[in-house]
Amino acid sequence: MKILVANLGSTSFKYRLFEMERETLLARGGFERIGAASSPFTVEAGGKREEGAIAAPDHAAAVRACLAQLTERGCLTSGNDLSAIGFKAVHARGISGAHRVSDAVLTAMEDYNTVAPAHNPPYVAAMRLLAREFPSIPLVAAFETGFHQTIGPAEGLYAVPREWIEKHGIRRWGFHGASHRFMAGRGSELLGNPSARLISCHLGGSSSLCAISAGKSVACSLGMSPQSGLPHNNRVGDFDVFALPALMNETGRSLDQLLDDLANRSGLEGLSGYRDLRDIEKAAAEGEPRAREALDVFVGSIRHYLGAYMVTLGGADGILFTGGIGENSSLIREEVCRGLEWAGIVLDPAANSTARGESTIHATSSKTQVWILPTNEEIVVARQARELLGNEATT
Amino acid sequence: MKILVANLGSTSFKYRLFEMERETLLARGGFERIGAASSPFTVEAGGKREEGAIAAPDHAAAVRACLAQLTERGCLTSGNDLSAIGFKAVHARGISGAHRVSDAVLTAMEDYNTVAPAHNPPYVAAMRLLAREFPSIPLVAAFETGFHQTIGPAEGLYAVPREWIEKHGIRRWGFHGASHRFMAGRGSELLGNPSARLISCHLGGSSSLCAISAGKSVACSLGMSPQSGLPHNNRVGDFDVFALPALMNETGRSLDQLLDDLANRSGLEGLSGYRDLRDIEKAAAEGEPRAREALDVFVGSIRHYLGAYMVTLGGADGILFTGGIGENSSLIREEVCRGLEWAGIVLDPAANSTARGESTIHATSSKTQVWILPTNEEIVVARQARELLGNEATT
Repeated sequence: MKILVANLGSTSFKYRLFEMERETLLARGGFERIGAASSPFTVEAGGKREEGAIAAPDHAAAVRACLAQLTERGCLTSGNDLSAIGFKAVHARGISGAHRVSDAVLTAMEDYNTVAPAHNPPYVAAMRLLAREFPSIPLVAAFETGFHQTIGPAEGLYAVPREWIEKHGIRRWGFHGASHRFMAGRGSELLGNPSARLISCHLGGSSSLCAISAGKSVACSLGMSPQSGLPHNNRVGDFDVFALPALMNETGRSLDQLLDDLANRSGLEGLSGYRDLRDIEKAAAEGEPRAREALDVFVGSIRHYLGAYMVTLGGADGILFTGGIGENSSLIREEVCRGLEWAGIVLDPAANSTARGESTIHATSSKTQVWILPTNEEIVVARQARELLGNEATT
Repeated sequence: MKILVANLGSTSFKYRLFEMERETLLARGGFERIGAASSPFTVEAGGKREEGAIAAPDHAAAVRACLAQLTERGCLTSGNDLSAIGFKAVHARGISGAHRVSDAVLTAMEDYNTVAPAHNPPYVAAMRLLAREFPSIPLVAAFETGFHQTIGPAEGLYAVPREWIEKHGIRRWGFHGASHRFMAGRGSELLGNPSARLISCHLGGSSSLCAISAGKSVACSLGMSPQSGLPHNNRVGDFDVFALPALMNETGRSLDQLLDDLANRSGLEGLSGYRDLRDIEKAAAEGEPRAREALDVFVGSIRHYLGAYMVTLGGADGILFTGGIGENSSLIREEVCRGLEWAGIVLDPAANSTARGESTIHATSSKTQVWILPTNEEIVVARQARELLGNEATT
């Protein structure tokens, strides 16, 4: 069984192709600038990486080219050799877990276009197109909220009118579910403890912490929307709704405009002027105070949730860093773990600065293990797609 | 020097009168149902408590009656014997600390009527009236944000566009400053450690946690508005702004209506149907699941900030419970401190269930001291008023 896992952007399409029997990665690649005159692509298969460009006016053209490239390279016998395309979908009204892409699912996603403005509209547009253009390939949407359905009331509910919760689905849904699910599984394996209490720190363009107990999510810093929790590269993170009327009054901007600012011109970029953490670290090292403040706010918010989740879990057996920042920024990891000896968390500075890939970075005196642990969201989505198809086949 | 500290509600006026030489409480009392045909009052002075009712069509009439009652009882020689009336004011645009009530101050408070909708409008109305009716008595507004001006960027900034911070004052201001300032001072005294790391838990109709290091506020769960942080009796606490467009769409309610719901029909009451924690505890004990969930959300949010602030402070020397709930609910204190042995926090269950007033409730094995510590916001406001007048006199 071969499953393609697609990661969609408004003008991009990245993918990995898995043979699910042994969960082998057969190929990976992607297309950029879809809709432009020329769309650069990469494809890696059989140990060879190739680059090029094609005309891909829309996502269907990119997927068609992808299937042809994978067939040429012997990864697929034809497009029909594909059992499913899996999508890491974000948020839909009243829907979580993994589902066949249907009109109902797409409509439920559209219902939350304003809740996930950076994520849902491009996904819906591309998925709708692919559903029409590839009617014979099962499309599976694995929602990022799925892993967090085990979060209980104490960590999941806002203190709002009951009707908002029960009728309108207002709650802390949690996102980055594919990543945190992978971290839960692999983290428990590495610690050799299926009931491990883990804090998964997914830090990247979009960031979240997840408290995990015995493989299950018990809390996530992302709430109702993917703009909440930690500051993201250009999205705000936690914010106070009652700042809005004052801002509307003072700036003359509408609610929609302010929400657009919060979803696109806030986060680390709003504070520092830089979107990429590497640029922020560089600017801070060169003495730019706004860049240093952005780092302080980012680290402060990670430590905020880290402390909260240590209490939620009754202490942590493992802290797991993943994502572009989590895996690559020794500075952020060091600042996050600073001064936590009282809680039994001690980093090994040398290991922290040199480690790459799956590795421990805690001192021998540390009661809590600290890991760099590259995530694999795609294999999680592929597994969810396989499971859904398997369930369909047996029912 | 005699200072009257006033606590204003939309139809109430409570006060304490201090002789500031030795910070003696000379009298206390209050008026309710101001504006109704008959306003009940109480007055306690010289060891005697009296009750009655008068006609008090507005706050000025109540204050006039108060001054007459205090003069009759020998606490004042006349209204002129009063050096100032101090107010625990909440929030004003661009103003913090203690200030003489002026048109500029009242206008700055009005500018934040939408940020503090339950607090500012009644305060502004009553203060404006009193300023007109008692032109010879200095009125001093001590803002609840004052104690929190020491909060740094990591704990104080939202990840928003710079202009919002610098031009529009959008940040985590923190409130309950008078209470947390008192707790900082008295807590350090009781621990015999001026550099103590304290977590002040002010739990009542309105609730917040404050992280204190060496007497200074370093973080507060209340952010830009008094509706943020922990759930309050009928105000929401932390919430995700991006739930608003979905709710507007689904309910047809306007932004203003939803903000009104969040400021008046949310919090513990929104979740449970009961506004008073005693009723919620009783209902939960009788098996009402919504009441139990409200307790879980409340306790969960206290533990969330407790963990966050332990990390912020690098461990806590003392946890201090105050406010109507903090001082009186052994259940909440017990649930908040449950399972924190790993962090060196161990409650003494017997002490916790029987202690009243200023007392320790931790076990001898606890590294962190845990106290019930009644707050005294009024003396803090009186001190701030005295200091302001003293500074004015010397400049």
